[in-house]
Amino acid sequence: MISEGDLVLVYVDERRSRVVRVVKDKTLHTDRGYLRLGELVGLEWGAKVRLSTGVAAYVLKPTLTDLMLRLFRRATQVIYPKDIAYMILQSNVGEGSRVVEAGVGTGFLTAVLAWFVGRSGRVYGYEINDEYVKVASVNLESVGLSDRVLIKNKDITQGIDESDLDAVFLDMPNPWDVFPHLGSSLKPSSPVIMFVPSVNQVLRVLEHVKEFRRLVNVNVSEIILREFQTCPDALRPKSVGVTHTGYIITSRLTKE
Amino acid sequence: MISEGDLVLVYVDERRSRVVRVVKDKTLHTDRGYLRLGELVGLEWGAKVRLSTGVAAYVLKPTLTDLMLRLFRRATQVIYPKDIAYMILQSNVGEGSRVVEAGVGTGFLTAVLAWFVGRSGRVYGYEINDEYVKVASVNLESVGLSDRVLIKNKDITQGIDESDLDAVFLDMPNPWDVFPHLGSSLKPSSPVIMFVPSVNQVLRVLEHVKEFRRLVNVNVSEIILREFQTCPDALRPKSVGVTHTGYIITSRLTKE
Amino acid sequence: MISEGDLVLVYVDERRSRVVRVVKDKTLHTDRGYLRLGELVGLEWGAKVRLSTGVAAYVLKPTLTDLMLRLFRRATQVIYPKDIAYMILQSNVGEGSRVVEAGVGTGFLTAVLAWFVGRSGRVYGYEINDEYVKVASVNLESVGLSDRVLIKNKDITQGIDESDLDAVFLDMPNPWDVFPHLGSSLKPSSPVIMFVPSVNQVLRVLEHVKEFRRLVNVNVSEIILREFQTCPDALRPKSVGVTHTGYIITSRLTKE
Amino acid sequence: MISEGDLVLVYVDERRSRVVRVVKDKTLHTDRGYLRLGELVGLEWGAKVRLSTGVAAYVLKPTLTDLMLRLFRRATQVIYPKDIAYMILQSNVGEGSRVVEAGVGTGFLTAVLAWFVGRSGRVYGYEINDEYVKVASVNLESVGLSDRVLIKNKDITQGIDESDLDAVFLDMPNPWDVFPHLGSSLKPSSPVIMFVPSVNQVLRVLEHVKEFRRLVNVNVSEIILREFQTCPDALRPKSVGVTHTGYIITSRLTKE
Repeated sequence: MISEGDLVLVYVDERRSRVVRVVKDKTLHTDRGYLRLGELVGLEWGAKVRLSTGVAAYVLKPTLTDLMLRLFRRATQVIYPKDIAYMILQSNVGEGSRVVEAGVGTGFLTAVLAWFVGRSGRVYGYEINDEYVKVASVNLESVGLSDRVLIKNKDITQGIDESDLDAVFLDMPNPWDVFPHLGSSLKPSSPVIMFVPSVNQVLRVLEHVKEFRRLVNVNVSEIILREFQTCPDALRPKSVGVTHTGYIITSRLTKE
Repeated sequence: MISEGDLVLVYVDERRSRVVRVVKDKTLHTDRGYLRLGELVGLEWGAKVRLSTGVAAYVLKPTLTDLMLRLFRRATQVIYPKDIAYMILQSNVGEGSRVVEAGVGTGFLTAVLAWFVGRSGRVYGYEINDEYVKVASVNLESVGLSDRVLIKNKDITQGIDESDLDAVFLDMPNPWDVFPHLGSSLKPSSPVIMFVPSVNQVLRVLEHVKEFRRLVNVNVSEIILREFQTCPDALRPKSVGVTHTGYIITSRLTKE
Repeated sequence: MISEGDLVLVYVDERRSRVVRVVKDKTLHTDRGYLRLGELVGLEWGAKVRLSTGVAAYVLKPTLTDLMLRLFRRATQVIYPKDIAYMILQSNVGEGSRVVEAGVGTGFLTAVLAWFVGRSGRVYGYEINDEYVKVASVNLESVGLSDRVLIKNKDITQGIDESDLDAVFLDMPNPWDVFPHLGSSLKPSSPVIMFVPSVNQVLRVLEHVKEFRRLVNVNVSEIILREFQTCPDALRPKSVGVTHTGYIITSRLTKE
Repeated sequence: MISEGDLVLVYVDERRSRVVRVVKDKTLHTDRGYLRLGELVGLEWGAKVRLSTGVAAYVLKPTLTDLMLRLFRRATQVIYPKDIAYMILQSNVGEGSRVVEAGVGTGFLTAVLAWFVGRSGRVYGYEINDEYVKVASVNLESVGLSDRVLIKNKDITQGIDESDLDAVFLDMPNPWDVFPHLGSSLKPSSPVIMFVPSVNQVLRVLEHVKEFRRLVNVNVSEIILREFQTCPDALRPKSVGVTHTGYIITSRLTKE
């Protein structure tokens, strides 16, 4: 049942779907009509409602990605769910994992990490830009995940405070500058996952991997998401969209 | 520290990496030399060892996907990690989720679901082929996740036994035949995630969605994984590989 | 040497490159400065010139695709060079070929066909919309290829006037309605090339192929063009772009 | 009408389609039955014939790409039709063009260039490996295009003999070593088209472009061909296939 203060996804159609917080005197305005949010209190999740114009809408419980894509404030270029999902599965992160992430940016990856490490896990986020630290903190707070996360306004290339970590995620321009700190912070054999936008950065990572000699099982991948127009009479991929985000590099730290 | 009975990933290079169980008198044979597995007992994870020929290898703690790809017995076409990862993130599954999956097949998706629902969650798997039920059960047992999973030799199109589910995953040729059972088993507003290989099936799903009228926020996507050769002197995508697996359809069940 | 009346590509950078006709008293205005076109008369192709601001530009002889993309008036959705190029190579069209194309639309495919059939070849274009006939005619005139082309304001599903054709190109919503006319117009064994945007149309083509029984060697393909940002310090595919145009279906007409 | 000595494409189905020369006493053996080639003499193109087992086959006039893919001897990695088609359209090559290509290899690109420059055009091929020169010559002879082509066993990095060329195609590991010779051989403003497999080579090209200062309008692209299974009941992209061939770099030579 929907209560005041809940975040809801008001879904009219693919192009009109908004995340709002249920506040009694507030009104959601769309180009198809408005909805008084107070009317939602007491409805069941998934209920059908009518905008002022009679147009139907559905009140859905937002998923984490709904919230990330429609509620989060953005400070930076963000990592997309398609990339985050693959990085996390490849990282073996799960219930109880303790992980480091740098840089935090808007907090997209941070939020999903916090989600999957669960109540017993912990995410340590490094971010050099104090403005981003604030934005990410607000975002994590808004999805109720901030108590699993510690975001620090710190330069990870200067060192990693934690030890015995289960995985390290590097979403920063120069991930190779973190390599010297991996040995003391990450459990040997654990995954190191990087995300970089350009092939020049991939090449630099590979060169530093060769020198560093303690990262093996290095794989470079790209995840391409192809979204379709869902009209059953004219099914086809969308005409225009995102064509590149970045390269995912997965690897494992050896003992020596 | 590695103990007898542990599963280990012996990593020589990208093409020579094998998951084996540490058994004292067993030997792992590769085309680069052999390794007596008893020697691994007492080593730390990530340790470097030498094959009989002197070639270096690393002893890594296998990730869940390492185990799925290198240890699981296969009974059927499997869903790939690239697709599983995206499906799970879109499904909002997490710690404590109770989900239904049909059909189980080899158990790839089942295993990852079991991983992410955590100790307090539960996966109910439906599979009509009793041979697959056995294979999947062995696979889940081998990764220590079988106590979070209940696999049933049942036809899900005849009904869903569970109720108040957080998500339903349909990896079967005719997912639309399950639509009539969603209302009584799934929490309204929850995700229904489908995976089908052909565009004909996508079209049939879309047609049934239209008739059924209780699935909204329907998205059809394809995840393309592009893997690279990681030679730093000649970085390039691999020349030959998987070019298609299937289409992911995500949707949400409404109240009425 | 550049003469008055020539079409030139004034290239400043990737985002500032324009096709203009050299007219003595005209001026080309760009956001980097202007260029008096009269100054170009007598220059050699490829010459470097300076905009009013001192910014360098190059005067290039436009290629056919430069003209199509930067000079042609557009009446409709156009076929992209990536698709046209593949369609033409698969069609075996060359010097002296006589081909039919329907529908002409803006004339992109028509222009490239006219280019490759050469002076001794001939392109017969069918187009039901008389407005498009005019636009395409102007476009072909502007690139000097109109004497190889006959564009007719006719519905090809009512019949094909020509016979002994070397190839037929169908870029129209219902190519299957042309199948009954292929036997009398196309040399047996010759290619029939179709272009359709949706999978529903591909399916309908395949169903009609099955019934018609005289098209074999049927292949369905999609050409994806991935363009890169060419900064040598940060090479990467462009972030946003065209993600789908249509499906190319190639086939061959049998004798019976 | 089919005569003795003609090349024919005997098409049984997608997996059984072979190019053979019609020789009276020869027999084509397939796993679906055999066909006495003498029987084809006098048949019309596109005719239906029966293998010894009664299975139907069609006798098609081979296209240039049929011949390249099914008849040509291969000495090297080849450029694929998808890439060739795009390179040629971007190069503005057509009837009467005079072009240089290096290295020739198996002659795939050479053959298509020879096709499109027509009887009045000319292709000058440079190839350092004399074995490849022989293979390519045999291949071009077999498709009747050798009189438009001059293949030389020469290292193009030592110089280009021709002048006033309309385009230069560089399909070699180190295209940048040819840059110093472009000014004396290529008409200013004309296209220089390169094909390289790795991103390292793309980066080196871009670096040399910067230094050389006479190549503008530089574009880097990749053409991805996605082929479908054409079963109308289960339309889908093929599961496994070519995932990378190389990068196409197009550019234009300036006057100075």
